[in-house]
Amino acid sequence: MKKFNTRALSGMQELLPELQTEFDRLKSNILTVFRQHGFLHIETPTIERSEVLLAKAGGETGKQIYKVVKTAESVDEADQALRFDHTVPLARYTVEHLNELAFPFKVTQVARNFRGERPQRGRFREFYQCDVDVVGRNNLPLEYDAEVIMTLAEALLTLPLPGKFRVRVSNRKLLGGLLEALNLEQKADEIFGIIDHAEKVAPEKTVQALEELKIGSENVVKITTFMEICGDLVEIKPKLQDLGLENAKFRAGIEEITKVLYFLQHLREVAGAEFELVADMKIVRGLDYYTGTVFETVLLEHPEIGSICSGGRYENLASNYTDQSLPGVGGSIGLTRLFYILQNFGSVATENVKPVEYAIVLVGEEERISTTGLELVEKLRKNRHSAEIIWGEKKMGDKIKYTAQIAQKLIVIGENEVAAQNYQVKDLASGEKSELILG
Amino acid sequence: MKKFNTRALSGMQELLPELQTEFDRLKSNILTVFRQHGFLHIETPTIERSEVLLAKAGGETGKQIYKVVKTAESVDEADQALRFDHTVPLARYTVEHLNELAFPFKVTQVARNFRGERPQRGRFREFYQCDVDVVGRNNLPLEYDAEVIMTLAEALLTLPLPGKFRVRVSNRKLLGGLLEALNLEQKADEIFGIIDHAEKVAPEKTVQALEELKIGSENVVKITTFMEICGDLVEIKPKLQDLGLENAKFRAGIEEITKVLYFLQHLREVAGAEFELVADMKIVRGLDYYTGTVFETVLLEHPEIGSICSGGRYENLASNYTDQSLPGVGGSIGLTRLFYILQNFGSVATENVKPVEYAIVLVGEEERISTTGLELVEKLRKNRHSAEIIWGEKKMGDKIKYTAQIAQKLIVIGENEVAAQNYQVKDLASGEKSELILG
Repeated sequence: MKKFNTRALSGMQELLPELQTEFDRLKSNILTVFRQHGFLHIETPTIERSEVLLAKAGGETGKQIYKVVKTAESVDEADQALRFDHTVPLARYTVEHLNELAFPFKVTQVARNFRGERPQRGRFREFYQCDVDVVGRNNLPLEYDAEVIMTLAEALLTLPLPGKFRVRVSNRKLLGGLLEALNLEQKADEIFGIIDHAEKVAPEKTVQALEELKIGSENVVKITTFMEICGDLVEIKPKLQDLGLENAKFRAGIEEITKVLYFLQHLREVAGAEFELVADMKIVRGLDYYTGTVFETVLLEHPEIGSICSGGRYENLASNYTDQSLPGVGGSIGLTRLFYILQNFGSVATENVKPVEYAIVLVGEEERISTTGLELVEKLRKNRHSAEIIWGEKKMGDKIKYTAQIAQKLIVIGENEVAAQNYQVKDLASGEKSELILG
Repeated sequence: MKKFNTRALSGMQELLPELQTEFDRLKSNILTVFRQHGFLHIETPTIERSEVLLAKAGGETGKQIYKVVKTAESVDEADQALRFDHTVPLARYTVEHLNELAFPFKVTQVARNFRGERPQRGRFREFYQCDVDVVGRNNLPLEYDAEVIMTLAEALLTLPLPGKFRVRVSNRKLLGGLLEALNLEQKADEIFGIIDHAEKVAPEKTVQALEELKIGSENVVKITTFMEICGDLVEIKPKLQDLGLENAKFRAGIEEITKVLYFLQHLREVAGAEFELVADMKIVRGLDYYTGTVFETVLLEHPEIGSICSGGRYENLASNYTDQSLPGVGGSIGLTRLFYILQNFGSVATENVKPVEYAIVLVGEEERISTTGLELVEKLRKNRHSAEIIWGEKKMGDKIKYTAQIAQKLIVIGENEVAAQNYQVKDLASGEKSELILG
């Protein structure tokens, strides 16, 4: 009888060991790609000063922050809270260690963040985010925008995704330049929001929302025409130029997106990496603090789940904490949510995932039998395998049943094996038997 | 100019990338040993119901719990909190997934826990604990006590410890049996506390503390005689028997510690593992919930830092949550504190720890140079190396200086290298040059 509610809190992902093994494998694949691309791994504390977190967290995020309190002080006074993303702690870390870091600072964080969102299916309150960022000091070449996107794409390619994905790239200076040309900068937030939301509603709803801003029907047409621009470099450049905008911001936007996409195509070709790449003016990344490149990633066969990897460039990582200019570009894979989605698609196979490689069952109580077993286990471990002896006085059948639940292979050791120093390995998935050969 | 206090909160360990690389390596070594020994990795949520955490946390720990609150509710009502160890979440997890797990459940957790301790040097409020546990259903063979200790010892052997360590083992039934025989069970808590504290004070202080309990001078002598028993199996068995205690608990204690130590010696011998192993009646593990085997580990050359790895056997993991009998044995390495100690001893060398293996500097703007660079980087990554090109228009000298801060090896690519398809690798620590050879 249970005396307590022992379920994990709602909004938390808690996995059984087999699923955890798969989750760990995917996470490790991602981090390996990040490291191979030269990103340095850091860990920042889970708990930060509230003022540090709140300096950047506006709107919904501000309301979702978990405060942390030790004693019976009131929550309003709580001066500590759980981080809700990796970017804010990275900003603090970079400013704090400014003189000890080498710039450009290529950095990765793969850890849990916390948001007290309303719990719903597929939304988590505690979730792994796998981030890469490059932070420059005073300047940061555009090649790093392409490199961040390429690194994330290569990490995604290590995952069991259902079908191909498409990376959709835009540049905030394009939409910014358009609004500047149309004298609509004061409505930028609303227009950014409408474009960001456009794919979730019928096209006429978007037009209607723009019309409600009372910006004139000509401007509505300009904006919707802009929004629809999508395709590869060759396709989009004339379309952007056809808009006839001559301001510096827009021209900078064209130059930047051209350079980033051109370089990204080159990287993709050299790596022989298979994913789609488009320029897509619908990508704005909502009200985030991006100022240049922005990108999202969708699964071609499952657009309904939205972006599985996104990010962009920010003019200044740490303007809240320092006067130093620290331009950056970064992006993130939300692994907890993605893993949940992959599970639902049946892309995470766990039936044959057994965390232990070799389980050894001893037949007989004699010490030379257990010694032989222990020596074999030791040899297997020295050869980088996981191996263990199943101890205790259970019946043979129960031991083998137990073994099949956790291990891939079974070795039985009794008098004969001790005498022959020769071991049969049974593959518990296929039932096949073979002789154990160690290097 | 900094606008904010950007230091990490006090009690948090925040590492620069080179130290983080070392920390990650040590953590990965530990987890690899745990996995090779057949322990299944799980992750429980960082946040738990307060009632789950408080059910087991008495005394100091209860006061150190961080509560987590989202809205402006009062802290007293806060029904969520950060976990302070891995054992309580493991108990909840095991009960919740009882019918989906295979028993004995060999499990490892390597993650951060949280305690709002008074901050002081070498004490952390957020800290990694690397735990192994074996949980049985109704029963659990004593071999697992030895296996838990052996697994932790082998994990410790992968760390750059200053000198050898000693594992000190006792069994709670011995002291329990003694107090039962002396009719002192009602003073057990005080006596456990005095013995636990004995090594931190002069011997006469311990005697004085025992005398203050008014238990009679004969009993004080019995207890101090018991406390001093220490040595290998051959030495301690006659000394324990000489105490002339005949109750069942004491006899069970002798039987258990004999079996565990004998088997542990055997495991150590087969593995060829070099560490000291003693039975030591001073080990009681304070007021913890252990009921059988208890152990601590000390560095022979640095006894002053106390135990670096400890644990024991508990009769019932989850008595607060279920009526099921779930005996367990487990132990833990406090990695954050240990890493801090190793740093202070100078055992963590980071001078030559450069997180990136190959950095490539391009000389010239031509595309064939960057293409050659990209192709080489791709080849290095396919061979499991980390490699990156240093982008941007910095001066050659600045690029090489930057490279030396983050990378182990430098490759410069210009016209000559493109023509010859032949690359010189400079080892940035030794200055030696050699030709790049890839498999």
